[in-house]
Amino acid sequence: AGPRRRHAADLRGGFLKEFSWRTRVYWEDTDAGGVVYYANYLRFMERARTEWLRTLGYCQRTLATRHGVLFAVTRVRIDYRRPARLDDELSVTCEPRTVGAASVSFAQQISRVSAAAGYDAADPPGPFDAAPGVLTQAEVRIACLDAHTFRPLRMPEFLLSAFAAQEKL
Amino acid sequence: AGPRRRHAADLRGGFLKEFSWRTRVYWEDTDAGGVVYYANYLRFMERARTEWLRTLGYCQRTLATRHGVLFAVTRVRIDYRRPARLDDELSVTCEPRTVGAASVSFAQQISRVSAAAGYDAADPPGPFDAAPGVLTQAEVRIACLDAHTFRPLRMPEFLLSAFAAQEKL
Amino acid sequence: AGPRRRHAADLRGGFLKEFSWRTRVYWEDTDAGGVVYYANYLRFMERARTEWLRTLGYCQRTLATRHGVLFAVTRVRIDYRRPARLDDELSVTCEPRTVGAASVSFAQQISRVSAAAGYDAADPPGPFDAAPGVLTQAEVRIACLDAHTFRPLRMPEFLLSAFAAQEKL
Amino acid sequence: AGPRRRHAADLRGGFLKEFSWRTRVYWEDTDAGGVVYYANYLRFMERARTEWLRTLGYCQRTLATRHGVLFAVTRVRIDYRRPARLDDELSVTCEPRTVGAASVSFAQQISRVSAAAGYDAADPPGPFDAAPGVLTQAEVRIACLDAHTFRPLRMPEFLLSAFAAQEKL
Repeated sequence: AGPRRRHAADLRGGFLKEFSWRTRVYWEDTDAGGVVYYANYLRFMERARTEWLRTLGYCQRTLATRHGVLFAVTRVRIDYRRPARLDDELSVTCEPRTVGAASVSFAQQISRVSAAAGYDAADPPGPFDAAPGVLTQAEVRIACLDAHTFRPLRMPEFLLSAFAAQEKL
Repeated sequence: AGPRRRHAADLRGGFLKEFSWRTRVYWEDTDAGGVVYYANYLRFMERARTEWLRTLGYCQRTLATRHGVLFAVTRVRIDYRRPARLDDELSVTCEPRTVGAASVSFAQQISRVSAAAGYDAADPPGPFDAAPGVLTQAEVRIACLDAHTFRPLRMPEFLLSAFAAQEKL
Repeated sequence: AGPRRRHAADLRGGFLKEFSWRTRVYWEDTDAGGVVYYANYLRFMERARTEWLRTLGYCQRTLATRHGVLFAVTRVRIDYRRPARLDDELSVTCEPRTVGAASVSFAQQISRVSAAAGYDAADPPGPFDAAPGVLTQAEVRIACLDAHTFRPLRMPEFLLSAFAAQEKL
Repeated sequence: AGPRRRHAADLRGGFLKEFSWRTRVYWEDTDAGGVVYYANYLRFMERARTEWLRTLGYCQRTLATRHGVLFAVTRVRIDYRRPARLDDELSVTCEPRTVGAASVSFAQQISRVSAAAGYDAADPPGPFDAAPGVLTQAEVRIACLDAHTFRPLRMPEFLLSAFAAQEKL
């Protein structure tokens, strides 16, 4: 039964479970240390969540104005392993892990797709550039709020079922 | 009559004509070039305008919620002469120059109050650090808008007279 | 001879003269007024300049590390006509206008490609949403600096000729 | 013995154990939801850590240029309880909790010192404004890095002892 259930889950929303969003590091994202400023990874992660939602067919501005629904981050657990640098192209994943009636938890990772440039004597790879793998990973918890009162709100049914279909089992 | 009028104007709001606001350069403000990112000087300038307004007794959130008035920047002319660097303490001025019925133009300058540190062999002054004077100067035009429709709005009388009293002749 | 010369110019770099870069408005870009914060349009414009440069084959990090060349903004003249809002998709142009030995001036415009959503009773178009056309336009002057001393530097020949070929006549 | 030990601890660095830094919410910090954007609380917290360090006598730019030492955030655990809004004045604390040879963990909290304005019918307190207490709290882990290689580095002795003297027992 195991394989069959997994197969069914794959069919339901398989392609989205691998959702990732590409973004580029610009001057605005870096700081005088020469790498991306630590708060700005949270911006990259929000972009990916927003685009994940758009892929499901939902736009946050419309959710607020038509459905009175707003999402607010209530908790972030983020680990910074290796820094991203100017001109790097990044891939940001977004996987819903726990879908509750009024909240969702996402697992998110940021990886380097391509470094700014091939390395040479003038720009040798830093200690973090050579290693493959994840630069930053986080668990981000989102609460559903009433857009007017900012009070916690049970998610509309259409969102709840859309999210649940994407939930990573 | 000219000199007398000027004198009277000085007495009316003299101390505010020298208004300046101190702010510090943090990591968040810098970029990988090692200096403050060019867009962030506009943030420093807005802080100074906001504090100038607070000195006059007005808080923008209150102006929006109670008086339905919002300010929007419609034009910026900014010249970058020398960069500010991490840990520099800056002084930002704010002088109203042209007060219209629905708009105000400000002259603003950013100067370095104190560099991060005394310079030595490990951190010699850069070509821009030694020179005294203004780092950045701008002319910023603000329009008064209806907070709900975003349409141009004649400023409430209490703002108009408060601004006019500060106008640099 | 005129048409022929124009034709040759078109062949050299014609498609780039229409260079524009798409970017999306996220929560991070907006402020409590409900629109994009005025300094953030400068970030969008820098993204477009960076991507314009990348299309020409140059990456700024590589220019700094291998060629010792840095670009710094020395002047911005920006007019804000209509605001961009959350979830809007924007198009940012980048046209070199005056290419000097140590500086370049760009004309840049930001237009709305698509509004966040179709409008309805719950989210009617604002006074600025309905009108077509340019939201923001700017003239941005860039200086070429020595990446180490931050002193003005004559552009390397390969950049100068690449820029000149794109210059809007 | 308890009281005496506590007394000694107070003498060592007592006043700093209560370190907090005031900061104001400006337009740049807010988003279209009307509250401070979630990533920006991390900027407020970094300002407080930087000022805490300055109170101990250390400036980060000097630490980098003279001592070759850089601090990088390696982990953040942050909980968002209530939002801050435009014009709020905030107090940000910074308490070192675990001082290791190459890393420090800080407990940090952000509270509202004063709301933008007294509330009235036009600007009633939101559901989060009335409640006293902490808006946001975080545990932030910092690693000491070699400013040139970005590799983990044992902290210089003068920093280690300065930090240890402030450690919350």
